[in-house]
Amino acid sequence: MAYRVLTRTAGSSQQQQQLKLLSDLLIRSFSSGPKNVGFIGLGNMGGPMASNLMAKGHKLHVFDISKDAKESLKAKGAVPYDNVAELAKASDFVVTMLPNNDIVADTYDTIIGGGGIKNQTIFIDSSTIDPNVAKAVQKKVKAAGATFVDAPVSGGVPGAKNATLTFMVGGTSEEYQAVKELLEGMGKKITHCGGYGMGQAAKVCNNMMLGISMCGLAECMNLAIRLGLDPKVFADIVNASTGRSWASEVNNPVPGIIPTAPAASGYAGGFATGLITKDLGIASAVATSSNSPIPLGALTHQIYRTLMAKGLANKDFSVVYDFLKNTEGK
Amino acid sequence: MAYRVLTRTAGSSQQQQQLKLLSDLLIRSFSSGPKNVGFIGLGNMGGPMASNLMAKGHKLHVFDISKDAKESLKAKGAVPYDNVAELAKASDFVVTMLPNNDIVADTYDTIIGGGGIKNQTIFIDSSTIDPNVAKAVQKKVKAAGATFVDAPVSGGVPGAKNATLTFMVGGTSEEYQAVKELLEGMGKKITHCGGYGMGQAAKVCNNMMLGISMCGLAECMNLAIRLGLDPKVFADIVNASTGRSWASEVNNPVPGIIPTAPAASGYAGGFATGLITKDLGIASAVATSSNSPIPLGALTHQIYRTLMAKGLANKDFSVVYDFLKNTEGK
Amino acid sequence: MAYRVLTRTAGSSQQQQQLKLLSDLLIRSFSSGPKNVGFIGLGNMGGPMASNLMAKGHKLHVFDISKDAKESLKAKGAVPYDNVAELAKASDFVVTMLPNNDIVADTYDTIIGGGGIKNQTIFIDSSTIDPNVAKAVQKKVKAAGATFVDAPVSGGVPGAKNATLTFMVGGTSEEYQAVKELLEGMGKKITHCGGYGMGQAAKVCNNMMLGISMCGLAECMNLAIRLGLDPKVFADIVNASTGRSWASEVNNPVPGIIPTAPAASGYAGGFATGLITKDLGIASAVATSSNSPIPLGALTHQIYRTLMAKGLANKDFSVVYDFLKNTEGK
Amino acid sequence: MAYRVLTRTAGSSQQQQQLKLLSDLLIRSFSSGPKNVGFIGLGNMGGPMASNLMAKGHKLHVFDISKDAKESLKAKGAVPYDNVAELAKASDFVVTMLPNNDIVADTYDTIIGGGGIKNQTIFIDSSTIDPNVAKAVQKKVKAAGATFVDAPVSGGVPGAKNATLTFMVGGTSEEYQAVKELLEGMGKKITHCGGYGMGQAAKVCNNMMLGISMCGLAECMNLAIRLGLDPKVFADIVNASTGRSWASEVNNPVPGIIPTAPAASGYAGGFATGLITKDLGIASAVATSSNSPIPLGALTHQIYRTLMAKGLANKDFSVVYDFLKNTEGK
Repeated sequence: MAYRVLTRTAGSSQQQQQLKLLSDLLIRSFSSGPKNVGFIGLGNMGGPMASNLMAKGHKLHVFDISKDAKESLKAKGAVPYDNVAELAKASDFVVTMLPNNDIVADTYDTIIGGGGIKNQTIFIDSSTIDPNVAKAVQKKVKAAGATFVDAPVSGGVPGAKNATLTFMVGGTSEEYQAVKELLEGMGKKITHCGGYGMGQAAKVCNNMMLGISMCGLAECMNLAIRLGLDPKVFADIVNASTGRSWASEVNNPVPGIIPTAPAASGYAGGFATGLITKDLGIASAVATSSNSPIPLGALTHQIYRTLMAKGLANKDFSVVYDFLKNTEGK
Repeated sequence: MAYRVLTRTAGSSQQQQQLKLLSDLLIRSFSSGPKNVGFIGLGNMGGPMASNLMAKGHKLHVFDISKDAKESLKAKGAVPYDNVAELAKASDFVVTMLPNNDIVADTYDTIIGGGGIKNQTIFIDSSTIDPNVAKAVQKKVKAAGATFVDAPVSGGVPGAKNATLTFMVGGTSEEYQAVKELLEGMGKKITHCGGYGMGQAAKVCNNMMLGISMCGLAECMNLAIRLGLDPKVFADIVNASTGRSWASEVNNPVPGIIPTAPAASGYAGGFATGLITKDLGIASAVATSSNSPIPLGALTHQIYRTLMAKGLANKDFSVVYDFLKNTEGK
Repeated sequence: MAYRVLTRTAGSSQQQQQLKLLSDLLIRSFSSGPKNVGFIGLGNMGGPMASNLMAKGHKLHVFDISKDAKESLKAKGAVPYDNVAELAKASDFVVTMLPNNDIVADTYDTIIGGGGIKNQTIFIDSSTIDPNVAKAVQKKVKAAGATFVDAPVSGGVPGAKNATLTFMVGGTSEEYQAVKELLEGMGKKITHCGGYGMGQAAKVCNNMMLGISMCGLAECMNLAIRLGLDPKVFADIVNASTGRSWASEVNNPVPGIIPTAPAASGYAGGFATGLITKDLGIASAVATSSNSPIPLGALTHQIYRTLMAKGLANKDFSVVYDFLKNTEGK
Repeated sequence: MAYRVLTRTAGSSQQQQQLKLLSDLLIRSFSSGPKNVGFIGLGNMGGPMASNLMAKGHKLHVFDISKDAKESLKAKGAVPYDNVAELAKASDFVVTMLPNNDIVADTYDTIIGGGGIKNQTIFIDSSTIDPNVAKAVQKKVKAAGATFVDAPVSGGVPGAKNATLTFMVGGTSEEYQAVKELLEGMGKKITHCGGYGMGQAAKVCNNMMLGISMCGLAECMNLAIRLGLDPKVFADIVNASTGRSWASEVNNPVPGIIPTAPAASGYAGGFATGLITKDLGIASAVATSSNSPIPLGALTHQIYRTLMAKGLANKDFSVVYDFLKNTEGK
């Protein structure tokens, strides 16, 4: 359908050329069958994601700064690379799953500088980074002649392992269609959030809300308990009232309320304090660059920053309840 | 069932006496039929609540400092009083629906001082006040020989008019049973929150969470929009993700997203900024008296306090979005 | 001069009577010489304050709930009492130095109820309490026929011992004159802050600023150090710049910068976290009752509330630096 | 003295070479007399600074994107340039005074890329930017063979005009000595803050403290006034107490207290809200990159961000008092 709309509206020679490129994209991606997929960044998330793509029959071309990580994928049939530009040249799609702004920017500079860009390649960055960096990388990749979309994920390591991640895609509608099938090999919900950078923007804004909800809930639960309320009774009241949220329903931070929540097992597993803090740092940065006031978001950031300072980086972010409650008698 | 449990466990003479009193309570309340119900405080909430009780067949004995408010109920068949102690003497149940701590405390002092307490009367305070004040009033009423429960409401003026309020009851299980049927004449959900003051505690803690959720959502929506996201698209993403809350699903503060939300009509109606600010003030007070840290709750309180200073007391509390967003160009 | 102004303006019989009372106050207080001084509350502050008054030649009448505290003063020549009304009857001045709102209010109720009020007595409350409670007690004492001023102190235990406290007095100009000489027996700076309650208001507002300064400074010092600045060099820059404050000049929270500061000795001594937290609690309460937004004051309150929850109540309030800095590697 | 220390410690050939370079720096800068000084950025600050250098007898080589700004300096005898690399080649010293991180970084890239670096040139960046960006630029300039120090200023436009600025210098002791005399032509206090980036670090940390002090003071003054205190009386109490700060002594935000403060003239002049907000944005960024919790700093940032959203960018930052106080009756 998108194709027909384009056909009707395209007129000029330049538009025709773009149309050709997009229809190629569509044909390529719609034609099912194994692809050559490059994968850069094979950590706790990237490793299982790459494995899931291999399980779908794709041919994987992989890179990581850790030799062990590459060897692990090679043992499953992937081709390891020492050079990301060479990896890119061999690939129809390239997925990058990297720790931060600078590493993402450097990696794409290295690919472009090394001549790794082909017209047909679609680059998908699933790292969580500043939307402005995503936009800048998209411009460079486009200027070099290829396609780039941002597609950060939620769902954590379990989602990566079980191919149940949510992907938040920023790019044109055609580009979204072009990557959807591939991403379905690693996740179960592929959302189109808007133009370039909007996948990152959606993730950072949602996660800022999540952090605020969790800190707020931790305060409320602690206050309720100190006022004499039974935690389970109060949790039920909140969940049936205007105070309810994903956090209250799924990840109540008080031990003993939700058996499957990290609070039940010493705040192990779950969504690490280190990761929500990173996301809140990105939120602070983009709020500054867009002149947007975020009083609660900024305070939540600082609270998690303090938790980090206390050595809680690897605990589930619901550990903020444990941090706020009295460690000494009332 | 509660009755049998009591029979089995009660032994001493004092317990026998208490048991007798409770069983009287149960019999009285379980025996359906019209009661003499006193109602003190006939404002925007209390007026329709009293009317609903009359519609259920109860005989109403009413007081308000406004003569007009009393006349309005008298016209519907209620008996107006100038003296709250006399009103109490004539009543099986007394419901109080008053603006703040001091007025509630003074009213009960006046009733007790005026000899208005009878053993059989059950006092129900549906005002929103400090749980500690509720506990103190309960003690005085009990010392004077009668029964008192706190039962604040949520649902606002529409809930009061349509008898769809939620009541959060603090008192013993027997007292909860004794008031449930009467309250069902004014609401559709009657929750037992725990002992004395726990109705107030539950309300204030839930509403603190609500205020935090709304402020946080307002920030996130504003940031998302300034980053380039389409508000409806982002709202859908949040509602399908970990950032969702009652606020995001029912009362999104951005005009145009939820047609029934106050944002769609200039933030008219809904839950007034003045009321959430009052509730957050109570939350701050009880957090102080219980030594409980509430960083986000306190900041939310101050944000709403600033909105009050800007003359927004009567707007729905989602107006915080309008307050935070840029009034001048990006 | 105040006397002549009053003579000129006083006309009615009631004014004449008030004038007589005030001139009596002035005469009494200006006539130097030993007085009978009641002192209620003989703790860490009140004990040395009472001793200092005895050293000035006054006759002390003392009460405390601790028998030991009374005995200690008795050993120095004071008359101990079991009944505060009797104590008041024997006194020209009564100083109260008590822990909180409720104990102050109860104490004055007991004095009034016990017939302890004489026209000539001047009550001075040096406790730190809510200005509104001070105003309410003043009204009751006045209605019972005597004089009451609020006169909270700063300077801590060392100031109490060395008679170098600052007193912040709330009352009329005449009342201020009437208490000044007595207070000079316990302090070196007696400030008239305004009408009833204004001594308390001045103290709570100043201390809120102090708390904000200290928390802010702790953050800035920590950030500066983590950015690579030498703490002493940066402290000097701040003190020569727009960032300077009493906290930066006198009580820098980083160990090693000011040898006399509590930071140099494990945050022992100084102004306890428990006390600044109490003052910030009063600030929050009066901000709520006066509808005044205090975003930084409220957050500072919550930060100190969190320190309390971590068991730091007895450490100097500059320990917030230790709380915020990383306990684990950078 | 620094020279002799170096002589004694230097041994290797590389050290000898560095020593030669540094002694050249010292000789060059200590030999008084007119220099060729490049100046890039001739705005409200840079324009008068460049004029002051000309008044000291230096030969100025100037650049700005505004032709008018260049013409204005040309009229006073400066040589205008279209190319910053050419400007640098003609200069012994180059001062840059630019709006933000990106423009500073781009300008130095252009100078280096255009072959504008000579061994003998000393670059001084007086812009206010992220210390990490300053460090990165220093590395690039050093790698290209020249010297770079960061030297942001405080004192505002009046300080720029009257040559009374404070310079906060980040660099080695020798480099500090090498730039001191030149900077004294534009300011009266030249502070050595530490190594590369430490001038920027000191400025941003001091200004974060300044912002916190001002917001806190605005809250305290407003609260004091609403509690009934006379603003002047309370201001005097604070200035004689533990709540005092530069803000309370020099720039009280309440109109009528300090005749020379911006509050006395509608918050005109002074230190613009837009500038403190920019500095707080840098503080937030470096706090994030250094994992430092700054709860009050972050909240102050958001408060000023909200003022920006309300169109107050050009008012003195003490306008936060006007923002917080009630615009409607109490």
